[in-house]
Amino acid sequence: MKALIFDVFGTVVDWRTGVANVARDMFNERGIETDPFDFAVAWRAEYHPSMERVRTGNRDYVPLDVLHRENLDRVIAAFNLELRFDEPSRAAFNRAWEKLPPWPDSVPGLTALKEKYTIAPCSNGSIALMTWLAKFAGLPWDAILGADIARTFKPERETYLASAAALGLEPDDVMMVAAHNRDLEAARAAGLKTGFIHRPREHGSGQTSDLSATSDWDVIADDMLDLAEKLTG
Amino acid sequence: MKALIFDVFGTVVDWRTGVANVARDMFNERGIETDPFDFAVAWRAEYHPSMERVRTGNRDYVPLDVLHRENLDRVIAAFNLELRFDEPSRAAFNRAWEKLPPWPDSVPGLTALKEKYTIAPCSNGSIALMTWLAKFAGLPWDAILGADIARTFKPERETYLASAAALGLEPDDVMMVAAHNRDLEAARAAGLKTGFIHRPREHGSGQTSDLSATSDWDVIADDMLDLAEKLTG
Repeated sequence: MKALIFDVFGTVVDWRTGVANVARDMFNERGIETDPFDFAVAWRAEYHPSMERVRTGNRDYVPLDVLHRENLDRVIAAFNLELRFDEPSRAAFNRAWEKLPPWPDSVPGLTALKEKYTIAPCSNGSIALMTWLAKFAGLPWDAILGADIARTFKPERETYLASAAALGLEPDDVMMVAAHNRDLEAARAAGLKTGFIHRPREHGSGQTSDLSATSDWDVIADDMLDLAEKLTG
Repeated sequence: MKALIFDVFGTVVDWRTGVANVARDMFNERGIETDPFDFAVAWRAEYHPSMERVRTGNRDYVPLDVLHRENLDRVIAAFNLELRFDEPSRAAFNRAWEKLPPWPDSVPGLTALKEKYTIAPCSNGSIALMTWLAKFAGLPWDAILGADIARTFKPERETYLASAAALGLEPDDVMMVAAHNRDLEAARAAGLKTGFIHRPREHGSGQTSDLSATSDWDVIADDMLDLAEKLTG
């Protein structure tokens, strides 16, 4: 095994807190009383449906930034806030996805893994989004892979294969690391190794999904530091 | 200006010394007396002609690794060494391009620039080649851009535009940095800012090309540390 590629939203960074932080600032400036966590969750709920048209071939590939921006309009409308956000403020709001805090173990864990392996995101986020997020969060990637390389979204098989191929590696030289069993199922089906990380607070205190590994993934870790210990210790 | 993208072979790393180092080891193991620098220069001489078929649309895009591998066969034949290298040893030889030493100022200069800007290679090398080279040489890139993103080679206009677009930036938010005037001419024509770095020993002591800036590039620097001082000081 030569490289590890990572899901990012939920696995490496806490998107819910990060988006809520930006939403809170946006709402405070405007005296809006909407709960910023409710808004973040509603925005994220549009995520998979918006990618599905690309995955099924009913829409040409567009970077996730474009989908996030379209979804923002929908969520602003759903919360009856259409008159409170002009175009420039919506563009600024959309950059919330570049300002997500890492889980506390992510940066030290990735830094330890980078000593032995090549590490890269295999996210549905674009190269731009992943690059700016890495600057914000201090993520020490060796390269940026994922959707923009494959021009489709996970869990489409091509996303994993294109990411391995971009490093000149065979699928089984690469481990996909994620907090989501579905992501790992698709990666395993494409021939990659699999690493599961527990993120039981990704969706807050009431989380019901991905609370445990649902298969015999190659590695199952409590967090990124535990993964580093299991792979390099 | 938000990002700097860099030519790599010659500008950031010393390809001539690096390839000669690998060639010397390969030749010593086999008792071959060919001069390793002559071999490195001959291999590099195939570089532009091999890309030209892709640039002109007469061949589909293939990563530079593939062209290097084809060119290696040609150079091995030219030096009458065909019987001395089997297929696995040629594949290993081809990885010479992942083992190139940085110029002494490159890593500290890039590290200083990274504090203020996003930095990425805009090389004709593939994502794989650039990633493994960065691991070898300690190059602290934020992302890997260039030929694989654009699916063509510099100085095709699309290479520069696709690299800026991959970061979600307008061309004039980005500076192309190179030791080669021709690269900067093409980058400027595409709307990017331009930075020239002097590398008068890229081709050894007898170098005749790119000994000085041939235009009024936005910045002209003695080396990477000088560039960092001029852009961040």
